[in-house]
Amino acid sequence: MDKLIITVTVDSTMSYPGNPLMPPIEDLDAIAAEYVRSVEAGASIVHHHGIHYLEHEIQADGRRLSKIDFSGWERLTEMIRSRCSPIVQFGIASARLEEKIKLMTLRPEMMSYAFNVHDEFFQPDPQFPANEMYALHPRDELETFCRAAQEHGVKTEVECFYTGAYWNLEFIRRLGILPDPVWATIFLGWQGGAWTPPTPDALLYMVEHLPANVNWNLSVMDSQTQWGLHAIAIAIGGHVRVGWEDNPYLPDGTIARSNAELVENVVRMAETIGRPVATPDEARQIAGVEAAAPVTEAAP
Amino acid sequence: MDKLIITVTVDSTMSYPGNPLMPPIEDLDAIAAEYVRSVEAGASIVHHHGIHYLEHEIQADGRRLSKIDFSGWERLTEMIRSRCSPIVQFGIASARLEEKIKLMTLRPEMMSYAFNVHDEFFQPDPQFPANEMYALHPRDELETFCRAAQEHGVKTEVECFYTGAYWNLEFIRRLGILPDPVWATIFLGWQGGAWTPPTPDALLYMVEHLPANVNWNLSVMDSQTQWGLHAIAIAIGGHVRVGWEDNPYLPDGTIARSNAELVENVVRMAETIGRPVATPDEARQIAGVEAAAPVTEAAP
Amino acid sequence: MDKLIITVTVDSTMSYPGNPLMPPIEDLDAIAAEYVRSVEAGASIVHHHGIHYLEHEIQADGRRLSKIDFSGWERLTEMIRSRCSPIVQFGIASARLEEKIKLMTLRPEMMSYAFNVHDEFFQPDPQFPANEMYALHPRDELETFCRAAQEHGVKTEVECFYTGAYWNLEFIRRLGILPDPVWATIFLGWQGGAWTPPTPDALLYMVEHLPANVNWNLSVMDSQTQWGLHAIAIAIGGHVRVGWEDNPYLPDGTIARSNAELVENVVRMAETIGRPVATPDEARQIAGVEAAAPVTEAAP
Amino acid sequence: MDKLIITVTVDSTMSYPGNPLMPPIEDLDAIAAEYVRSVEAGASIVHHHGIHYLEHEIQADGRRLSKIDFSGWERLTEMIRSRCSPIVQFGIASARLEEKIKLMTLRPEMMSYAFNVHDEFFQPDPQFPANEMYALHPRDELETFCRAAQEHGVKTEVECFYTGAYWNLEFIRRLGILPDPVWATIFLGWQGGAWTPPTPDALLYMVEHLPANVNWNLSVMDSQTQWGLHAIAIAIGGHVRVGWEDNPYLPDGTIARSNAELVENVVRMAETIGRPVATPDEARQIAGVEAAAPVTEAAP
Repeated sequence: MDKLIITVTVDSTMSYPGNPLMPPIEDLDAIAAEYVRSVEAGASIVHHHGIHYLEHEIQADGRRLSKIDFSGWERLTEMIRSRCSPIVQFGIASARLEEKIKLMTLRPEMMSYAFNVHDEFFQPDPQFPANEMYALHPRDELETFCRAAQEHGVKTEVECFYTGAYWNLEFIRRLGILPDPVWATIFLGWQGGAWTPPTPDALLYMVEHLPANVNWNLSVMDSQTQWGLHAIAIAIGGHVRVGWEDNPYLPDGTIARSNAELVENVVRMAETIGRPVATPDEARQIAGVEAAAPVTEAAP
Repeated sequence: MDKLIITVTVDSTMSYPGNPLMPPIEDLDAIAAEYVRSVEAGASIVHHHGIHYLEHEIQADGRRLSKIDFSGWERLTEMIRSRCSPIVQFGIASARLEEKIKLMTLRPEMMSYAFNVHDEFFQPDPQFPANEMYALHPRDELETFCRAAQEHGVKTEVECFYTGAYWNLEFIRRLGILPDPVWATIFLGWQGGAWTPPTPDALLYMVEHLPANVNWNLSVMDSQTQWGLHAIAIAIGGHVRVGWEDNPYLPDGTIARSNAELVENVVRMAETIGRPVATPDEARQIAGVEAAAPVTEAAP
Repeated sequence: MDKLIITVTVDSTMSYPGNPLMPPIEDLDAIAAEYVRSVEAGASIVHHHGIHYLEHEIQADGRRLSKIDFSGWERLTEMIRSRCSPIVQFGIASARLEEKIKLMTLRPEMMSYAFNVHDEFFQPDPQFPANEMYALHPRDELETFCRAAQEHGVKTEVECFYTGAYWNLEFIRRLGILPDPVWATIFLGWQGGAWTPPTPDALLYMVEHLPANVNWNLSVMDSQTQWGLHAIAIAIGGHVRVGWEDNPYLPDGTIARSNAELVENVVRMAETIGRPVATPDEARQIAGVEAAAPVTEAAP
Repeated sequence: MDKLIITVTVDSTMSYPGNPLMPPIEDLDAIAAEYVRSVEAGASIVHHHGIHYLEHEIQADGRRLSKIDFSGWERLTEMIRSRCSPIVQFGIASARLEEKIKLMTLRPEMMSYAFNVHDEFFQPDPQFPANEMYALHPRDELETFCRAAQEHGVKTEVECFYTGAYWNLEFIRRLGILPDPVWATIFLGWQGGAWTPPTPDALLYMVEHLPANVNWNLSVMDSQTQWGLHAIAIAIGGHVRVGWEDNPYLPDGTIARSNAELVENVVRMAETIGRPVATPDEARQIAGVEAAAPVTEAAP
């Protein structure tokens, strides 16, 4: 069994808008500090959303999505890389495709793409209205993304909310633009129309139907079951993702003052199960990711 | 265990465009005859698509969908109802919502709605290009549909391609517009980004996670596994759907000359398992569907 | 998927003592006729118990088991083989080991041995007392049996009531005395302390944990679930065993007037699922069984 | 979900005869100290084997079992109870029934009985010969044991190596001599003919088929998978048993210098999952066990 790769994801803006500890998304110092502390605690992948803004109105293309602050992404990435050397994974599902491709020039080592529909319903506190997100991801879009990723030396993170993503994964892999081993994240308990239940049965079902040559990672958005499901994932060979975005609560039900506390809990859990934790370089080797060139080269 | 309810669905235009036995969609005589023969063979629900046309170009609303021939739907329904009395279930996922609601005035006893994304990839013969369908079904759309269905005395068929549909089912049920028992169809093996694998494990997974108070029905679009999965469904209490739309092939690999042959195979299979087949009136009682008023009343 | 091998087992003396159609065990004409009719209906393996008597008192070896009428076994085998050519499989779990080995000189093509404890509780009618059977099968006994079987050119049927039998199977296989492919029967629903529940989940569990290079066969002693579980077995590649011993009831709940009716039901079921039925010679090839030499050679 | 009940079992004489840290079974001081340290670390049930000797020769009753040193059991129990107040559970499967019943007069709060065959094959080091144990447990024996337990105010621990034990559990419960909630232990990975594989699938299978009103506990004898399976058990509501008997190795592969280290690892694991650990009195309430009367009353 490979060493355990821990991903940290800080941005809870959409998923837990009431999280009082989340800094403003423009406060790059605070956000970078969260990532760095988490890497020091044991995370080897940082999943970040840079700076982005949800559009207030429907745009000329008939869609209302998130707008990318390119410079913000660049600065956050540099701030993290200047202090530690995790795998940098760019998230932000709700950006336009062309903007995501442009972000690849910042040379993240990984970049996320949902291989199924986005249909989320975030309402951690029923007293407040829900944040809903809807987006189709047709196969020609997946193809464009993966071709661009391959050209830029970026590894695609295949986000899987249900088995439809596996079908698309194989479809894209047959085009030769999704190199082995694939890195896939299974999402359980994310409320909405892309929901897979956060149960042990569902986890085993998703894992047993995974295509071959795939490293899998688990994200659970459900404070009641997340830690138990993470324990199962660690026991059966999966990797895990934690952070304020997925679930800000520690096992005792209190909110984590820092994302590093969530990472530390995974590290302790892995120790009790007997699974060593990967360093960033070990994670690169397991995931088949090349280290990014030094940042200084990126800005001639 | 309830008696077995068999649904028949004839229209293979999209799913098996090469089916040489499929009459033109305007040939209502031939199509009605297929439905009537199937009911005589044991089907108690007829799932039909009336007459419809895929739009050739993108329309003013920015979408390219199917256009409903209202009169065609009316005539086909009457032709069937004049010769037998199955539960009439209207399909056609790719119509506009307002047109689907207008169809309710024809008083089908059931009408289908996908409670998850449509993302199909039909390519039974790899020598021909695939038919792809994409459509989001946001919750406000589901709500509008179900309210209208309830007002018109139409029972919603909840189409479930993966567990996200269950989440939406519960969401809509909490609004009080999806009366018990819910009628849900599980779709396995439908290629594309909404795919759930056609395996016994996947079937049990989908069944074991079903919400309470749901009658379930199984559609499998995979000629290698359909009959075996149907046997499992019959054994564990599900209902089954067959017809040219889902799989035109008999167990011996030959194409069914009539949809009735596919229904007859289910009837024989059920006999060997010991599950009696429901008549249309028994199906109405199990599914909680009221019989439609006589057709003549509909056209004063 | 291999063609379907059907085993028939007639003797319901222990399991359904109230079966009014079961001839006395000494009525070899009637019993042989049951087997022959079943082979004509599609069975390719006949599992028989010859003539045997349960000892009335505890014997000198401290055990109360079944006594073998060697000549009865010989005559029944010849009566069957003179009229058809199925694989002959000797059963009778409760005989002494030395008597079972002596039976091998009759050259059955297969012989059954429980690879786990016998702990049965037969009480199909609660108004009558239960028939209970208990026997340990230590590994040295399994080894002696399998060595003798190999020397006599007899294939061992590995009876598996739970996964402990798999452990023993692998243990004996490592000794080199259980040639591939192994022939194993999974028993579900047999009441008593060796019980595995007759559920689809249990069947999949048993099948998914099977050792490699094993052909599996299913026996279910539960009239409510037997036919459904057999349908699942046929769908997923297993073989099936039917007969008065396991369940004398047809799917409609009536008692089968002949074992051949039970076999015919399996044949029809397999047709509806699309699984061809093996002839005895095809069964020999699938199971890796050599045809017995002509009977005449056996009695010089 | 109930708080987590941890059982500790020290005696590795049979299962890991090479364990260099195991004191001689007569060294009650050392053994009691192991139990007390483990209770201080978080165990609330102590499973002990007192002092016992495997008979060297077959006895007059034709069996070779373990002989009970009654006084040794009494002293060990008192030594533990004088220093802490766990639930005392008597083990020793291989004793004669009458001796086990006599042990009930020492008023353990629980006493273990295998509800299926004993068929163990202990060979942790392949260089040494295996320890094998075989014993049938017929239903009349289970009945005698449970009646005696009920009369003595002792709760039966139902040992379950496969689902046959569940059938016997229900059989005995119908006799009214196995009060709710039943306390059952599931054994995975114990080599031999009673083996259930130490896999997540097997664990879920055993848990999902459990009879109603049963608290379950998990024992795994497999150093590679034990800690992962314990994590799953803790996550899904089971209780866990650890100790030198089951697996003397810590997650990092080193041997535990004390059983307390194994308990501590469970406590840490439970913390990371968010499951609080039960005190002995909380364990009594969950398991439905009455506290034993003070020890002084026992020796008038």
